[in-house]
Amino acid sequence: MRRLHAIIPAGGTGTRLWPLSRADHPKFFLDLLGEGRSLLQATVERLLPISETITIVTGSRHEDQVKAQISDSRVRVLVEPSPRDSMAAIGLAVYRLAEEFGDDCIVGSFAADHVIEDEQEFVAAVNNAIEGAAQNYLTTIGITPAEPSTAFGYIEPGSEIAPSVYAAQRFVEKPEKDVAEEYCRNGFLWNAGMFVMRAGLLREGLAQMLPQMDRGLAKLSSGPVDAAAWNTLPRIAIDYALAEPMAAQGRVAVTPGNCGWSDIGDFKALADIAGVEGTGVFTRSKKHVVTVGLSDVAVIDTDDALLVIDLHQAQKVKQVVDHLKETGQDHLL
Amino acid sequence: MRRLHAIIPAGGTGTRLWPLSRADHPKFFLDLLGEGRSLLQATVERLLPISETITIVTGSRHEDQVKAQISDSRVRVLVEPSPRDSMAAIGLAVYRLAEEFGDDCIVGSFAADHVIEDEQEFVAAVNNAIEGAAQNYLTTIGITPAEPSTAFGYIEPGSEIAPSVYAAQRFVEKPEKDVAEEYCRNGFLWNAGMFVMRAGLLREGLAQMLPQMDRGLAKLSSGPVDAAAWNTLPRIAIDYALAEPMAAQGRVAVTPGNCGWSDIGDFKALADIAGVEGTGVFTRSKKHVVTVGLSDVAVIDTDDALLVIDLHQAQKVKQVVDHLKETGQDHLL
Repeated sequence: MRRLHAIIPAGGTGTRLWPLSRADHPKFFLDLLGEGRSLLQATVERLLPISETITIVTGSRHEDQVKAQISDSRVRVLVEPSPRDSMAAIGLAVYRLAEEFGDDCIVGSFAADHVIEDEQEFVAAVNNAIEGAAQNYLTTIGITPAEPSTAFGYIEPGSEIAPSVYAAQRFVEKPEKDVAEEYCRNGFLWNAGMFVMRAGLLREGLAQMLPQMDRGLAKLSSGPVDAAAWNTLPRIAIDYALAEPMAAQGRVAVTPGNCGWSDIGDFKALADIAGVEGTGVFTRSKKHVVTVGLSDVAVIDTDDALLVIDLHQAQKVKQVVDHLKETGQDHLL
Repeated sequence: MRRLHAIIPAGGTGTRLWPLSRADHPKFFLDLLGEGRSLLQATVERLLPISETITIVTGSRHEDQVKAQISDSRVRVLVEPSPRDSMAAIGLAVYRLAEEFGDDCIVGSFAADHVIEDEQEFVAAVNNAIEGAAQNYLTTIGITPAEPSTAFGYIEPGSEIAPSVYAAQRFVEKPEKDVAEEYCRNGFLWNAGMFVMRAGLLREGLAQMLPQMDRGLAKLSSGPVDAAAWNTLPRIAIDYALAEPMAAQGRVAVTPGNCGWSDIGDFKALADIAGVEGTGVFTRSKKHVVTVGLSDVAVIDTDDALLVIDLHQAQKVKQVVDHLKETGQDHLL
């Protein structure tokens, strides 16, 4: 039962976990949970049992590290000539898979650096999504909200079109707190960016709505990835390029996933997942770390940078990284 | 006007500033104020203008570093064969000074690792103490309390015996808060362990009250420091050996010093002196340190140990060091 061709875009720098995640060593390479494997390795291991192939799309800067971490005959690595956002990265893989396996093959995109605690529930959700995809819906796995978070967009489910698969009424942006609470009361689901569909549906959607993207990806559907053709592709996220416009056309479905998902969006989320009480210490060194009298604080120690942060203000790490950029301290990024 | 023979016992490990202060690199070697000089160097520089000689008494472990930091023809370095507390260390120097300069020479002991912000006021206090010493009192400089601290012992001044010099009624131990407040209302002074006296008075006092110490120090009053003789000396602090019993005999005087003194007893005191607001960062590395959302916290980073501490609990560093000892982590001490 391996009907899926999984795609894992492994790009970005994950600035919200600086100084653990760095430009040369982004979040997906980190073993944040201390499991002895990176988030990328965990993602591949989670998908291998249900996938016929896995395609990792990454930048040339990270190609060697990806290949050092992952070696399975069913995993391919595609190298982007430059970062051009998620629609180009996912599209590159889908057009090639369509070329090789035909338009009816089922493709699905999954982030390289998220955590899923309940793998059984995850597999069940993917199988539901594959049913939705087989009925020619762009099917997303919507996460059952653990709380009325303001950090994620939401999806409104409508009528059931297959067991546990619902027509998606609309995608909505990250809400204010009171709106998030209303969404949760009304059964909305978190948009975790997991999309499953027929390869042909994605190609049709792009041909209709982003013909420049479709033409460019068609040229890139086999052989070496041509940098000149790549550089003509529009920079756009798959949510805006495909998911939202197709939802407006009634061609998107959603299936709930209650699988202990987290994007580990900041050190607060990491501390929660790690079960930290009081003070979280995250270090890449063998240094002896002692804290006295602190609570809800994270200490992140690396060779060249040390961050100590009130976990209630974990989102501010982005400002720290922005400041480093603005002041030209690129060696710390 | 250099009538003083200053003595600086430079021993101890200063565990309350761990991990900055270490067994091999105690507090007096540190440049805690970022002045470009260690506390020991600052102490010597403060005393040189008013001293005929300065004798530093230190352990063999620190001899080389002391000599590397201090080079002045008027400074001598005496090496203790092993640590035997402050009476032995100071006595060793005093008996040798008495041998060389006679019993009427004025000796004074000063800690190697304290801070004094107002040097002019300090010099005035030392000169007053020398007057008291010349009148054959064991004269201590009592610090005008900045607050009703419970971290110091106090001295009760009595009748004036010379300008700004008072008979010392008694020494009292570190008090509870309410008692400290009463002491401050009644004009008590902090005992900062600075003692000035005729060399002969110290010898007479020991001969009377600690004859074993007197006999041992007499044998050590010239030539190389004999380890066998040294090891017969009682382990006792000068406060208990000399100051308290002599106070009971009415032979101790005190002169107030309002000279911005601090023993930098913990990181709270260091942060206060350094004028830190919010978060104090004390590091021996070039590491980039960022803190977010913290207040009254100190971050102390060294090569092999990192401490992050709520400044309100700065006294607990001692417990951290005790724990390291108990668990056999001597390499971190």
